[in-house]
Amino acid sequence: VMDWGLRVLQDMEKEQETLYAWKKRVGQELDSVVAFWMKHSHDLEHGGFFTCLGRDGQVYDRLKYVWLQGRQVWMYCRLYRNFERFHRTDLLDAAKAGGEFLLRYARVAPPSKKCAFVLTQDGCPVKVQRTIFSECFYTMAMNELWRVTGEMRYQNEAVEMMDQIVHWVREDPAGLGRPQLSGTPATEPMAVPMMLLSLVEQLGEADKELASKYLELGDWCAQRILQHVQVGKATCSPTFQTGHALEAGWFLLQHAIRKSDPKLRAYIIDKFLLLPFHSGWDPEHGGLFYFQDADDLCPTQLEWDMKLWWPHSEAMIAFLMGYSDSGDPALLHLFYQVAEYTFCQFRDPEFGEWFGYLNREGKVALTIKGGPFKGCFHVPRCLAMCEQMLDALLGRLEPAHAAPLPAVPAREGAK
Amino acid sequence: VMDWGLRVLQDMEKEQETLYAWKKRVGQELDSVVAFWMKHSHDLEHGGFFTCLGRDGQVYDRLKYVWLQGRQVWMYCRLYRNFERFHRTDLLDAAKAGGEFLLRYARVAPPSKKCAFVLTQDGCPVKVQRTIFSECFYTMAMNELWRVTGEMRYQNEAVEMMDQIVHWVREDPAGLGRPQLSGTPATEPMAVPMMLLSLVEQLGEADKELASKYLELGDWCAQRILQHVQVGKATCSPTFQTGHALEAGWFLLQHAIRKSDPKLRAYIIDKFLLLPFHSGWDPEHGGLFYFQDADDLCPTQLEWDMKLWWPHSEAMIAFLMGYSDSGDPALLHLFYQVAEYTFCQFRDPEFGEWFGYLNREGKVALTIKGGPFKGCFHVPRCLAMCEQMLDALLGRLEPAHAAPLPAVPAREGAK
Repeated sequence: VMDWGLRVLQDMEKEQETLYAWKKRVGQELDSVVAFWMKHSHDLEHGGFFTCLGRDGQVYDRLKYVWLQGRQVWMYCRLYRNFERFHRTDLLDAAKAGGEFLLRYARVAPPSKKCAFVLTQDGCPVKVQRTIFSECFYTMAMNELWRVTGEMRYQNEAVEMMDQIVHWVREDPAGLGRPQLSGTPATEPMAVPMMLLSLVEQLGEADKELASKYLELGDWCAQRILQHVQVGKATCSPTFQTGHALEAGWFLLQHAIRKSDPKLRAYIIDKFLLLPFHSGWDPEHGGLFYFQDADDLCPTQLEWDMKLWWPHSEAMIAFLMGYSDSGDPALLHLFYQVAEYTFCQFRDPEFGEWFGYLNREGKVALTIKGGPFKGCFHVPRCLAMCEQMLDALLGRLEPAHAAPLPAVPAREGAK
Repeated sequence: VMDWGLRVLQDMEKEQETLYAWKKRVGQELDSVVAFWMKHSHDLEHGGFFTCLGRDGQVYDRLKYVWLQGRQVWMYCRLYRNFERFHRTDLLDAAKAGGEFLLRYARVAPPSKKCAFVLTQDGCPVKVQRTIFSECFYTMAMNELWRVTGEMRYQNEAVEMMDQIVHWVREDPAGLGRPQLSGTPATEPMAVPMMLLSLVEQLGEADKELASKYLELGDWCAQRILQHVQVGKATCSPTFQTGHALEAGWFLLQHAIRKSDPKLRAYIIDKFLLLPFHSGWDPEHGGLFYFQDADDLCPTQLEWDMKLWWPHSEAMIAFLMGYSDSGDPALLHLFYQVAEYTFCQFRDPEFGEWFGYLNREGKVALTIKGGPFKGCFHVPRCLAMCEQMLDALLGRLEPAHAAPLPAVPAREGAK
């Protein structure tokens, strides 16, 4: 009996050590990644950020992708707001300069709210997408800027843009410029309700008024995302992105936690975390495939079997959140599995930040650290969220370490 | 002296044998490829073609991509028109059914000439691209249908659509739906003048009136394509597709031959054939990279190092055309090099047709035989053109085989 009690305690200590080691590893990596972007990506001339960075951080293209401008502003504000060591003026100033760049140049033809997809260094629009995503990242940036500065002009921008996005999605998409066609599938791509759900979370944080304003919208988004799994083969294409499923998973998990809906939480862990992970993990070389096909056909995306950084960072968040919420050790071990692969394969200890694109075997296929779709977002968001979650888990374990659990009788016997 | 003369003759015989062997190999492959599409791709219910075909030819998606509908109509007509063994009613009927499907459904909102990019099986538009390419392949199909049927309604469609395309490209692109933006590069993508140049060739074939109508347009296209090489780093992005350079090469070569411009021909062979081939051939695993970067940076396209079927089929055409025109044996040997790699790596002897997408090492990455961008076009066009060129080359060699060349003095001495 004594042995058993000791073993439980030893196991707990060992787990605590592992969690602590990961917290340290993740925290150090976050420092290094933030330093990389601080050093290489700031455009001191026009404001905003260069994101097309080579392996060593050198700028290979000065184009500014609006998704990535908005995301980097958001990320800097989040770090400034949530981490004492990042509560630094230089981070805040860069975020504000990025925000001003967006305010001045993102919209193609004001007063229309449609934003460009990519701008020249000095803010001339190069390309406009017929989707809502530039506008969504613009909204995220503005809401965060308001949170860190308190300036209402940012929040007004955020809320007005959000209203416009919701109008495009749920009422009239005409303003997006995409014609309504008789053969278009009735369901929008899963990315749309996913993105909106994350905006509901963003705008509603510690803001009762907006949380209540977007309450119904959040439920609608969750429903639409869930439909994508339930409808399955009936939708246009059964091909899906592993990373999208996992990211949708933790978005939904946050939603279910907010709603205190344990049945939904279990369903999400099953269908959005475990299912895409097990079907998407490469049994031969490790790592998550970029695309999968629910019917087990060959995806038509040329890059389907590549290993991208962001499905792995999303998986780390999803499994650690799943474990934090459920306490199921299987989810913690999946976190370890993914994190180990990710840190070994994607990190670049020589120049910092992560490689984004490996081939199936894990060899670096693209040496860039940033590009049209990789900026200062998925990596630091993952590291920041994981650091916070590991911190919280360790905080929960602390008392157990300090004093024996009252429920373990063997300890009594050992006295 | 006698030895030398004999060796020349033996070399010529050997070369003739090699050419003949390739002609046979190419011809048999063309038969097999055409049989594959005839068997698997015809939609007997609605007309038109399924192009999303799995390895064994099974349809995995019934969507109809307009580029590929137009291309298959064009290909069938070409074969019907130029090859005795393909002068078959079933080919013609399928081409006509494809043409009727396009006439009925390709345009999204008649009388506007804008065509869809993809339709449902029964012709409902699913997606519209803000480019000219659907319309270009529509034009190619209609012009060929006129050539094989003599029906003027096809030719009227072709010419009217061509006029619309030229208007969009050279006068006012508003009808394409892409907004004019201050940051958009002044030069259109190289694919635009390439495509137009091939239409000039298509419409002008044995048609003096149209050849003269589009004479200036052809020169304009050639100039714009040449600018892409000369401007180089000044354009938006120095990344280019190996296959596009080679395809532009043989389009320009046809143009230069028509113009009887030997200086231009030599320049094209140098800049559009040899240069992209040598920088784009993988020294480690063989085959042509999909994307290259003129500044030797890493391309940002995830699939840059994959080996796709069509750059290889275009290279086969380009080098055989270059050799046919110049007689430079180095070009013939490059044809052999590419053709050998291509036949070994892309052919599927088990189910017919070619795999389209290999990874860098040459392993099949996508098992599909057709998809949104691979239909009945690049493979049979390459095989048909190569068969014709090899035939013509053998025709030129025949007399040399029958009688000794008068210019070889050694033969005189041997008498």
